[in-house]
Parts: sequence; C-alpha cells; structure tokens
Amino acid sequence: MLKSGATIGILGGGQLARMLALAAAPLGLRCHVYSPEKNSCAFDVVHAGTVAAYEDEAALARFAAAVDTITYEFENVPAKTAAVLAKRKQVIPDPHVLEITQDRLIEKNFISELKIATAPYAPVHSATQLADGLAKVGAPAVLKTRTLGYDGKGQAKIAKASEANAAWRSVQQAPCILEGFIGFEREVSVIAARGQDGQVECFEVTENVHRDHILHTSTVPAKVSGALAEEARRVATRIVKAFDYVGVMGVEMFVVRSGRQQHVLVNEIAPRVHNSGHWTIDGATVSQFEQHIRAVAGWPLAKPKRLGRKVEMLNLIGDEVNGVARYLSEPNTAVHVYGKGKPSARRKMGHVTRVWPGK
Amino acid sequence: MLKSGATIGILGGGQLARMLALAAAPLGLRCHVYSPEKNSCAFDVVHAGTVAAYEDEAALARFAAAVDTITYEFENVPAKTAAVLAKRKQVIPDPHVLEITQDRLIEKNFISELKIATAPYAPVHSATQLADGLAKVGAPAVLKTRTLGYDGKGQAKIAKASEANAAWRSVQQAPCILEGFIGFEREVSVIAARGQDGQVECFEVTENVHRDHILHTSTVPAKVSGALAEEARRVATRIVKAFDYVGVMGVEMFVVRSGRQQHVLVNEIAPRVHNSGHWTIDGATVSQFEQHIRAVAGWPLAKPKRLGRKVEMLNLIGDEVNGVARYLSEPNTAVHVYGKGKPSARRKMGHVTRVWPGK
Repeated sequence: MLKSGATIGILGGGQLARMLALAAAPLGLRCHVYSPEKNSCAFDVVHAGTVAAYEDEAALARFAAAVDTITYEFENVPAKTAAVLAKRKQVIPDPHVLEITQDRLIEKNFISELKIATAPYAPVHSATQLADGLAKVGAPAVLKTRTLGYDGKGQAKIAKASEANAAWRSVQQAPCILEGFIGFEREVSVIAARGQDGQVECFEVTENVHRDHILHTSTVPAKVSGALAEEARRVATRIVKAFDYVGVMGVEMFVVRSGRQQHVLVNEIAPRVHNSGHWTIDGATVSQFEQHIRAVAGWPLAKPKRLGRKVEMLNLIGDEVNGVARYLSEPNTAVHVYGKGKPSARRKMGHVTRVWPGK
Repeated sequence: MLKSGATIGILGGGQLARMLALAAAPLGLRCHVYSPEKNSCAFDVVHAGTVAAYEDEAALARFAAAVDTITYEFENVPAKTAAVLAKRKQVIPDPHVLEITQDRLIEKNFISELKIATAPYAPVHSATQLADGLAKVGAPAVLKTRTLGYDGKGQAKIAKASEANAAWRSVQQAPCILEGFIGFEREVSVIAARGQDGQVECFEVTENVHRDHILHTSTVPAKVSGALAEEARRVATRIVKAFDYVGVMGVEMFVVRSGRQQHVLVNEIAPRVHNSGHWTIDGATVSQFEQHIRAVAGWPLAKPKRLGRKVEMLNLIGDEVNGVARYLSEPNTAVHVYGKGKPSARRKMGHVTRVWPGK
C-alpha cells in the first residue's frame, strides 16, 4: 500500500498518463512519466519525467529505482520492457494481462473460455485459413492484425469473399483474426475497476458512437434496459476477476437483439483507463483516473455515482480542438485540452463533457 | 487573451499554486511556478519551476521572459518583485491591488470609502493612539499589525483597557490597526471572480468556522436568509468592481443582527483564491481555481452552480493529514493532500470535501 508522497511511475506520456497524473496529485501522490517522446503532454503535470526508449534497459532500471510502483497508459508495452521493470518494482496491472490483451486472438479465446459471448471469429495465418474463416463467420467481416493496431489501424474490411485476397495483402499477411460483422443496436462499454483487495466497482454502462473508427461521443445513461445494464456490468466484473486484475479496465461491447431480448457481445478489452470513461472526470463522484490510482496505490476504491441526469463526452479530434473557445462559454460544460501542440489529423487533442443538471 | 499551450507564471509554490496548476492543465495551459522554497508542493504538477528569492531580479527577469502572463497565490508579494515583473509581463490581478490589501488600515479605509460596513477600527502608531482607539472602538478589541500576519499571527487580543500596554509590546510596537470585536452570528465569505471583460461571477455564500484562528470548515449553503446572501454577493461584486479587479478574490464577512435584520460587515479581503473556496473543486460545476485561470487567461468565466444539496470542506491541519485514510472510504468524499511532506503544527496539509447528493 502506497503512502502519501509516494511516486507512481507511468509508462507512456499521452493524455491518459496526463489525466492519471492530474488525478494522483490531489491524493498526495507524485508521478514520474516514462516516454520516448520529448514533447509528451504528460510531462507538463508531473514531478519527474524520463525521456528514453522502451528498449533502454539502463533507463528502465533508473526509472524503476526512482518510483514506488509502476503502471502504464497503453496496452502495447513491449513484453521485454514489462519484464525488466517487473523484476525491480511491482507493475500494476500485472504484465500477464498484457500477454493476453496484446493479441486479439488470445484475448478472444480468453473471453470465450469464460463463456462470454463475442462476435464470431477465426484465426488467419494464411490465405487458406482466411477462406475457411470467411466460410465460418460469413461476409461482411473484418480482418484485423493479431497485434498492434488501434483506432481502425491494421484493419481491412471484407465486404464479400472476392475481396479476401486484397484484404490479406493490405494487412501484409501478418497473423490476423477474422471477425464476423455484428448487426448491433448500439455500442456500449463498461469501465470496471478492481482494487488490490478484490473489490470491484463498475461505472455506469456508457453508450459510445464511433466516427471513422474513432470514438466520437460517450453518453450516460446508455439507452439500454436495466437488465442489459446489469448483464454488461456482470460481464465486465467476470473479466476483471478472471484476470485477477488490479486497476481500471475498459470493456467494449455490442448490444444485439434476439427476439425481444437484448444481449451483449464483448468486442474488445483495454487493460487501462479508457476514452469512453473520460466523462467520469466531470460527470461522476469519482473519475476512472482516480479509481485507477487508488487501485495501483492499494487503497480502497470509491463508489462512483453519476452527477446530473445525463452526461455526454465529445472527443475533439485534430483541428476540432481549435474550436474549443465556444465550449468555454457553454453552461455546465467542462473543457479538456491535452496540450499536445499542433493538431494533426485523426489525433485525439481534447474532449468536452456536458453535464445536464438534475436527477 | 492566452492561446492554448500558453504558460502562466505563478508566484508562490504552496497548495494554492498547486491547485491553480491542476486547474490550468485541463484547459491546455502550462504553469511555471516561482518559489524560494526548493520543496514547494506546486513544483510536483507544473511544466517548469524556478527556485529563487523574490528579491533576485535576474531570476525574476528570466521567469518573466519564460511565461506569457503572471499571477500569484499570496497577497504578500513584495512591491519591488511585482514592479520588476510588471515591467516585463502583465501581472494579474494588477499589483495596485496589493498596495491596498497588504496594509490592513489602507484596506479598511478603501472598503469604508465604498460605503461598505466593517467592524469599527482605529489606526494605532503609538501608545496614545491605542488608548484613543480603545476609547473609540471599545473593549474587547484586537490589535493587528498593519502589514503581514495571517492565521492569527501578528495579533493581540485586548480584553480590557488595562491589557493595552502588554498588547502593544507583544506586536513590538509595529504600526497597527485596532479592530472592535463584533458580536457576529456567523462568519461567511464570498468568492468572487471578475473577467477581463468585466463579467463578475460570485460563488454561493459560504459559511466558515474557524478554530484557533485557522479555517476549520466551510459549508454551503450558509445558514443565512436569501436577502442576506444577495447583500453579501452585492458587496463582493462592488469590491471587485471598485478595484477594476481581474481574477478571483475572497471576501470574508461577519453576519450581524440588528433587530430582525441581518447584515454583513466586511472583515477582510484576499486578492487570490481562498481557502473558503476549496469546496468548489468537488462541489460546484466550476472551481474557484478554474475561474481564476480563465480570468487570468482573458477567457470567459463559467457560471458556477453547486452540486448536491450540501457541501462541506474540512481542512486537515498538521497531523490530521495522517488520518486521511478514513476519508478515502467515505462515500461522496473527495480527498486533497497537498504533498507538503512531514506535517507541522498549524500547517494546512490537505482538505476533504463532502458532497451530499440530491437537490
């Protein structure tokens, strides 16, 4: 259990690390960010920073020596980096989680073994397997590289079987997973937190709208039945327990209908604070960032409650951040600019959160 | 008007600077803290820091060159420091305010000239003036040094006229103001913000309880009539307008009764964010810290609204911060530890804010 004044090391220097650090400070904890990018926006709000490659073992050792515990803001922490650090200080969430979530196929198998529904999928390591997979999951489908890739990168849509070869070339024949398309009603997510004592606290089910493969808005309450909301939170809880997880995890799901019943299929999981949980900073009694810090510190989780009758988070992508002034004058609207400098296309530059007052 | 990514210089490195910096970051603004103390807790959360004396003109010049505008967390900024900086960059609030608020006598005269009521007072620069003053304001009274002094320092109570000489010795015959004791019903404050465009936004009237001359709790809503709350906010608004003030100001008042009517007397003003406004971080739609940053940046102020039906802020003084763990488990309670290291007696080490949900 960390004491007041202790230092949390954070791998990665983007907006998630920045918001983690901003949540750690009021708790009396310091942060030390490790990032290969000199201009990382998280450096602006931390006690200490290290600029070094994730492969720089000497720098990693110094970083581990300078902090009391280590967490990360992204799931693609190289296995070797995690191993070097874990030998020296506790890394939370435990790196065994990364081995699963860094590979879409292993992740899907893990979830399926928990008897939790996912979209139909098939492994693809050859053109033959792709053809077999298409026969199994049907078209349209989407071919995704097993590792890396996010916000639509490393993906190819296959509308019909004849497009299979082009898709296979476009992912450069990397090991893949083929996922069947789901006729979903809506996309939701559950941000779950689990403490070192095993306590689990889920935030309210969040409804997400993507635009061009990037999260556009997150809204609570989601337009789902109470029963479905219960199911979604139960599924997220089972997943964090199965991992013996500590920290915050984002679980993305599809809401599908069979007859009069709604159900969830798990789409993917992120072993970190999640964009669809940003509304909790201004729209809940505790934020996902504070919950993660509490978990990493070995402190009790808080019980999150929504503020207001509706909360909406809107991402500011690329140039959209230049129009932030109008949100400063909007009532009950909180502005978050990540300090990343010049906007570039498709880059998450900030977000705004609107809270509708009342019950 | 500051642009995203601009840097605000803050004089002073205590918890007020720290909370200002934590409010500036989500707005995409960087902070550079200037403090003579190497271990200042604000250094933990800022882009840049300068450790140098307030008299170090070369360091002040470098600081001014490195930032886009300058503000301060404490009212005792030396006049010379302010002058050196103001020649190079805009200092907000304007240093002319400091000349008034650094001297209790000049401040009281300023407020009186606005036809705003204060406790009876008299200038004391000699034993004779003290005797005259006591005859005018009556005993009990309190003798306060005109400059410096806070949290009860530089003060001597005079219960009856025979104690006058001892009091005069205890303040080392420094220039003083003698203030008559007020039979007040309660102590309240108004945190007022004024933007560069002249817009004024007051937070709700806050009820304050002091213990041993240090703020103990702040509670909203205050137990005062609607008419009194209006009067209190009107008084605060008149004061910030009279100063042509930009930024957040704390106005402390006594609530007194004459017959069936309640009125306010202004006790003192602080040209900065104020301890009695800390509840706004967790208990309002915008915090006093964000309002100050918006004002300093030349951006529109937000319209603050209370969250919950009641909000209470409790200061953690000295050792009390060691008991912070219990508040982490309390529902709807936000913990703020300032990261000042080892607690010392009478030092403000943190605070907690409880928000009672509902209207």
